[in-house]
Amino acid sequence: MAVYTDVSFDDLEALLAGYDIGEPLSFKGIAEGVENSNFYLQTDRGGYFLTLYEKRVQESDLPFFLGLMEHLSARGIACPQPVRRRDGAQWSKLNGRPAALVTFLTGLSLRRPDVEHCSAAGDALAKLHAAGADFAIQRHNALGITGWRELVERTASAADSIEFGQRALIESSLREITAGWPQHLPSGVIHADLFPDNVLFMNAQVSGLIDFYFACNDAFAYDLAVMLNAWCFETDGSYNITKGKALIAAYRRRRELTGAEIAALPVLAAGAALRFLLTRLYDRLNPDPMALVRPKDPRDFSRRLRFHRNVKNPAEYGL
Amino acid sequence: MAVYTDVSFDDLEALLAGYDIGEPLSFKGIAEGVENSNFYLQTDRGGYFLTLYEKRVQESDLPFFLGLMEHLSARGIACPQPVRRRDGAQWSKLNGRPAALVTFLTGLSLRRPDVEHCSAAGDALAKLHAAGADFAIQRHNALGITGWRELVERTASAADSIEFGQRALIESSLREITAGWPQHLPSGVIHADLFPDNVLFMNAQVSGLIDFYFACNDAFAYDLAVMLNAWCFETDGSYNITKGKALIAAYRRRRELTGAEIAALPVLAAGAALRFLLTRLYDRLNPDPMALVRPKDPRDFSRRLRFHRNVKNPAEYGL
Repeated sequence: MAVYTDVSFDDLEALLAGYDIGEPLSFKGIAEGVENSNFYLQTDRGGYFLTLYEKRVQESDLPFFLGLMEHLSARGIACPQPVRRRDGAQWSKLNGRPAALVTFLTGLSLRRPDVEHCSAAGDALAKLHAAGADFAIQRHNALGITGWRELVERTASAADSIEFGQRALIESSLREITAGWPQHLPSGVIHADLFPDNVLFMNAQVSGLIDFYFACNDAFAYDLAVMLNAWCFETDGSYNITKGKALIAAYRRRRELTGAEIAALPVLAAGAALRFLLTRLYDRLNPDPMALVRPKDPRDFSRRLRFHRNVKNPAEYGL
Repeated sequence: MAVYTDVSFDDLEALLAGYDIGEPLSFKGIAEGVENSNFYLQTDRGGYFLTLYEKRVQESDLPFFLGLMEHLSARGIACPQPVRRRDGAQWSKLNGRPAALVTFLTGLSLRRPDVEHCSAAGDALAKLHAAGADFAIQRHNALGITGWRELVERTASAADSIEFGQRALIESSLREITAGWPQHLPSGVIHADLFPDNVLFMNAQVSGLIDFYFACNDAFAYDLAVMLNAWCFETDGSYNITKGKALIAAYRRRRELTGAEIAALPVLAAGAALRFLLTRLYDRLNPDPMALVRPKDPRDFSRRLRFHRNVKNPAEYGL
C-alpha cells in the first residue's frame, strides 16, 4: 500500500511510543487529501487521524494549523483536535515528514447539500469566525489576491487548451477583481476552503469541520464568498438563490455583515471563483501521478466566475 | 475523492436502504487493494468494509468468494463476513459495479513478521484448509501453473528491461517447473495469496485473514509454498530457515504433510515464486495510472526463484 508516504507497523509502533493513546487496533491509509498522506488509526481508546505533511504544507505553518485546531476545539468547535505527544509536542517526524495525530470525527460529507444543510453550514462558519477571534498566531493567505497573479502567469497561456476563452476570462477577471478589491473589511482567521467536502454532517447537523490547511487571516466575507461558490451552485452551473439566502441568513444571525461587506460580495465571490479556477487549472496542467484524487474540472469555476461578473447587485445572492 | 470508483453520500444511502446495519457515522475511501475500490464504513452498529469489484474480479466468481468467506466465518475462521441484504442477496450493484459489504476486522498487518508470527500464520493456514474442506463451490486457479505460460508470453520479451537475465530465468524456470510439477497432491480450497499484508495480528495472535480474491481450488502444499515465499525471506533476499521451520511446524501440527507434498516443496516454492514474479512483472510493464499502490519490485521474486531452483533437498526449507 502506498498513499504518498507509506507507514509500516514498525513506523507506527515507534510513533505511538511517543503518545499516550493506547494500543493500535487498526490502521488504514485513507484515499483522500491532495496535500498530505492520511491514515485512519483505531486504538483501544478511540479513533485518530494521522497526517504526514507532504510538499504543499510547510512545517513552519504547523504551529498555526495545529494551534488553530487546538484553539478552536477548546472553544467548542467540532474540529480535529491535535493530540499532544508525551513530551508536549504537537507533531514529530515520520519517514522524514512532519506527522501529527488528531482526533477522528464521525460524520459524512455531502455531495449535494440541500437548503437546510446550507443553513447549518453558514451557521458553522459564523461560529468558526467568532471562535478564531482571539487566536494569537497569524498566517498570510498565500492563495489570496496577492497570490493570484503568479498563478495566472503559470496557467493562463495553456488555459484555452482546457476551455476556449478561458485565458481572456482569467486575465480580464484578474484586472477587474484587483481594481475593485475591497480594503479594510472585518478580518480574522478564516477557513478559506469550506467546501461540502470539509463539513461533516450527522442528520442535518454539522458534526465537524475539517481540513484547516488553507486557513489563514483574511476578510471574513471572503470566507462567506468561498462558501457561496462551494455550496450554492447546482451541477448545471446555476446559482440557487434559496440556498444562498439560507446560508447568508444563518451566518448573519450570528454575525451581522457590514454595509461594506455586503457591497463587496460580488467582487469577493468573483475572486473566490478565480482562486479555485486557477488552482484547479494548475492541477490539471500539472497532474501529480501519485495523487489519489482525480484533478477536478476547472470549468466548474469559470462558469461561476462568469456568473459573479454579471452580478449587478449583492441582492442577487439572496441577501 | 476518487478511489477507482467514487461513492457519493446519495449512493451510500441508496445502498444502505437494502441492508439492516444501522445508520452511517463515517465513510472513507481506503488506499489499499489493487483489484477493487474499498471503503471503510462505520455505522451505529459497527465497522464494515464496502468493496466495489473492478475489472479484475469477475461477478461470476462472487458466489465463490463471498460464499467462501461466509462458509469460513461460520466455521470460526476470523475473516470478513459478508453481510446479506434484506432480500438475502450477498451483493448488489453500485455505480455499475458489483458491490458487497463485509464486516470490518481489527488488527494490523506486519511488515516484518518475526518467528512467532510465522508460526501463528502457519497455524492459521492449516485451520483455513480444514475449514474450507466442505465448501461446495469450486474455482479453478487462474493464476496456477496452467496460467503461467500466457503470462510468460506477455512479459518475457520485456523482462530483461527490468533485470538483465530475467527472461532466460523465466523461460528456463517455466520449462523446469512444468516438467517437475506434481500431480494428485492433497487439494482443496486455498487462499493462494496469504502474504503478511493479508494476515491481521493483535499482540502476536492472528486476528483475521483477509483478501480472498485469489482463493481457488488447488494443492494445499502450494498454499504453504506461497507462504514460504511471502513470510520467510529477509529483505536482502536470504531465506530464514528459522522462520520456515516455525511456519511449517505450526502447519504440520494441525495437518501432517504427505511424503509427496514434502518432496514437491522445492518445485511448488519455485512455482509460487514464478507466479508472483510474473504478475509483478506484468503490473510493472502495464502500470495502471489510477492504481492507489505502487507496483512492487519483480526482482524480489526472481531472487526467490533462483533460491528455490538451487534447493536440492526439501530439508533446506526447515522441515
